[in-house]
Amino acid sequence: MSTRNFFSVLGRNGKARVGRYVTQHGVFETPNFMPVGTQASVKGVDCERLAEVGAQITLVNTYHLWLRPGAELISRLGGIHRFCAWHGPILSDSGGFQIFSLQRIRKISEEGVEFQSHLDGAKCFLSPETSIGIQEQLGVDIAMVLDECPAGTLSHAEVEKSLALTERWARRSLAARRSEGTRVFGITQGGVFRDLRTRAAESIAAIEVDGQRFDGLAIGGLSVGEAKDAMYEVLSYHPQQLPEGRIRYLMGVGTPEDIVTAVSEGVDLFDCVMPTRSGRFGRAFVSSDEPMINIKNSRFERDTGVLDSNCCCVACRNYSRAYIHHLFKVGEMLGPQLLSIHNLTHYLRLMQEIRSAIAAGRFDELLQREKARWKSVPLGRGTADERSSQILE
Amino acid sequence: MSTRNFFSVLGRNGKARVGRYVTQHGVFETPNFMPVGTQASVKGVDCERLAEVGAQITLVNTYHLWLRPGAELISRLGGIHRFCAWHGPILSDSGGFQIFSLQRIRKISEEGVEFQSHLDGAKCFLSPETSIGIQEQLGVDIAMVLDECPAGTLSHAEVEKSLALTERWARRSLAARRSEGTRVFGITQGGVFRDLRTRAAESIAAIEVDGQRFDGLAIGGLSVGEAKDAMYEVLSYHPQQLPEGRIRYLMGVGTPEDIVTAVSEGVDLFDCVMPTRSGRFGRAFVSSDEPMINIKNSRFERDTGVLDSNCCCVACRNYSRAYIHHLFKVGEMLGPQLLSIHNLTHYLRLMQEIRSAIAAGRFDELLQREKARWKSVPLGRGTADERSSQILE
Repeated sequence: MSTRNFFSVLGRNGKARVGRYVTQHGVFETPNFMPVGTQASVKGVDCERLAEVGAQITLVNTYHLWLRPGAELISRLGGIHRFCAWHGPILSDSGGFQIFSLQRIRKISEEGVEFQSHLDGAKCFLSPETSIGIQEQLGVDIAMVLDECPAGTLSHAEVEKSLALTERWARRSLAARRSEGTRVFGITQGGVFRDLRTRAAESIAAIEVDGQRFDGLAIGGLSVGEAKDAMYEVLSYHPQQLPEGRIRYLMGVGTPEDIVTAVSEGVDLFDCVMPTRSGRFGRAFVSSDEPMINIKNSRFERDTGVLDSNCCCVACRNYSRAYIHHLFKVGEMLGPQLLSIHNLTHYLRLMQEIRSAIAAGRFDELLQREKARWKSVPLGRGTADERSSQILE
Repeated sequence: MSTRNFFSVLGRNGKARVGRYVTQHGVFETPNFMPVGTQASVKGVDCERLAEVGAQITLVNTYHLWLRPGAELISRLGGIHRFCAWHGPILSDSGGFQIFSLQRIRKISEEGVEFQSHLDGAKCFLSPETSIGIQEQLGVDIAMVLDECPAGTLSHAEVEKSLALTERWARRSLAARRSEGTRVFGITQGGVFRDLRTRAAESIAAIEVDGQRFDGLAIGGLSVGEAKDAMYEVLSYHPQQLPEGRIRYLMGVGTPEDIVTAVSEGVDLFDCVMPTRSGRFGRAFVSSDEPMINIKNSRFERDTGVLDSNCCCVACRNYSRAYIHHLFKVGEMLGPQLLSIHNLTHYLRLMQEIRSAIAAGRFDELLQREKARWKSVPLGRGTADERSSQILE
């Protein structure tokens, strides 16, 4: 067996580690965070601003791009990098999460999942093989396997049955790889059940096809509605169950507090719509004692300060809180644009700080600082408006 | 009498001229075009991109800023330049156009105009004196007088009566100036009636208060629904009726063809929502034989070319037409952002070309080129959606 070795751990501090991952479109450092470009566009942020905020790798959604404009079209146009003008690494999800979260009439079989397009109700079918095929056609650097993402409310028996299907699909996904350039990551499921997570970590990591294993391992099925404590419980043991030599990616997570906590348990890679979605709704992450502000609040009407004096994004190097408050109050689209860029800058600066702290052997200080800052913030899942925009991001 | 002299004509080619105008926040070259920042934000364009497109002066709307967030607040926050982070020259309209175009219940008296806020129906009153006062409080470089903007359908007698009021208001506006730093421009009205335009040019230019006259003269009441031929008829004589030594500003106009035509008659300054509003609706100005394209058209679905190979805006230096088509098709806000920036870049590059052509004595070539390009384009007033967004821009 020869595992392809694209990931290097360069330093450790406790369970946290710094490293680098090599793709055909360049290297990204870890721990890192991927801005989400659902429809091949990080909402409101052009590719030059995206580089400016410090992004090293971005994520696109297979489900959305498959439906519109189609993977074949993107391939004909020269591939996803040329299409969206992001020339660094790109990871795509498998499409599974959207299919399961969109909750349309669907039928899950051994073969794959049948569902209706959320756009026009057309019947569609996605199998592990077609998902990998679509992602390779898009031309991404990292493809994710199709997995079943069970609801957080299911019983142990139901989650166990689902996990078995996810394991079989994982093997088929790896076997479906055709492009040498595309890395493929496996995904563990198992809900919040320790025995199932333990089994998933072992089984997914061990899958081997033609002498090759997964080029990275992702933790799926968290931050999908379960209690925060339950997620933190899984994070307390599960990352360490994944092989030391492979990159660990926690999917769809999360708040800055979630991220530092997961890093402290050995996670290397993250994605989440939170910085952009929160930004569109007026919420700004800042580096003061109050870690997040709602710029629409009337207390900012006359605030001549910048969002965050530690930030050098286009919003903070030009505008006052009062101005951005005004933009949201009168409905100018520049408001959502500025806060999306600001929040991404905040997240990616945090990742840089995390890497530096680990390298310097001082990660625990940063961890405690962020935990203290977020202690009193009851960060919910957002307003109804935000939730309704979530499935389409 | 000592007219303050802020405008210099540096060269002529036929009736067209190049020049420069000095304000307290810097100089702008003429002929020039002002991007419209209705609510102190050029829609979708941050201040750094606004500099990048080549803007030298921008316009804000007194009416909108007076209602929200209020001139007093902007003044307390350090003035309009600091507020919107545009540190070059800023011109504001008087608020009159919005009041008349919003068509709310209103009462026009000798004193001023009574109207209801379009936001909450609150009763408001604007006089020539309060309008200048608000604009000075905003801290703009150039303030416009309050004028009555009569509908294009009125009779000669009605327009004549309206013009008389506009003349009396103009004198009161000039007398209301308190800040030495604020230039004040007069506005001619008179509809499409040659005798009234002739009278307006003489009367507004001659107004003198305390030995000072208007620092510039604007042509109002065009492009407000009259036929294009009627507007071109007025442009064929009216600009030349305005004194040679003062800057001539044609308000709210227009298409590239309108602009080159007006420049050929001696106009120096323009503003229009067209580049940004058209951009938001998917229309892009390009430099090919087809002067404007609708990117939503299905023929661009697989078009790997850039919008305009002569353009170096953020859209053209990164993205294909196919990608921007996709953004509009799936409703990504980046689409309107990119086309707004692209169209402004197109307009401001045109103004640069106009200045160079005049300086080189070859303006007629450019004029004929643009006229030929636009000959076959029946440029209407846009779709119903575009029209409904017009009053609020």
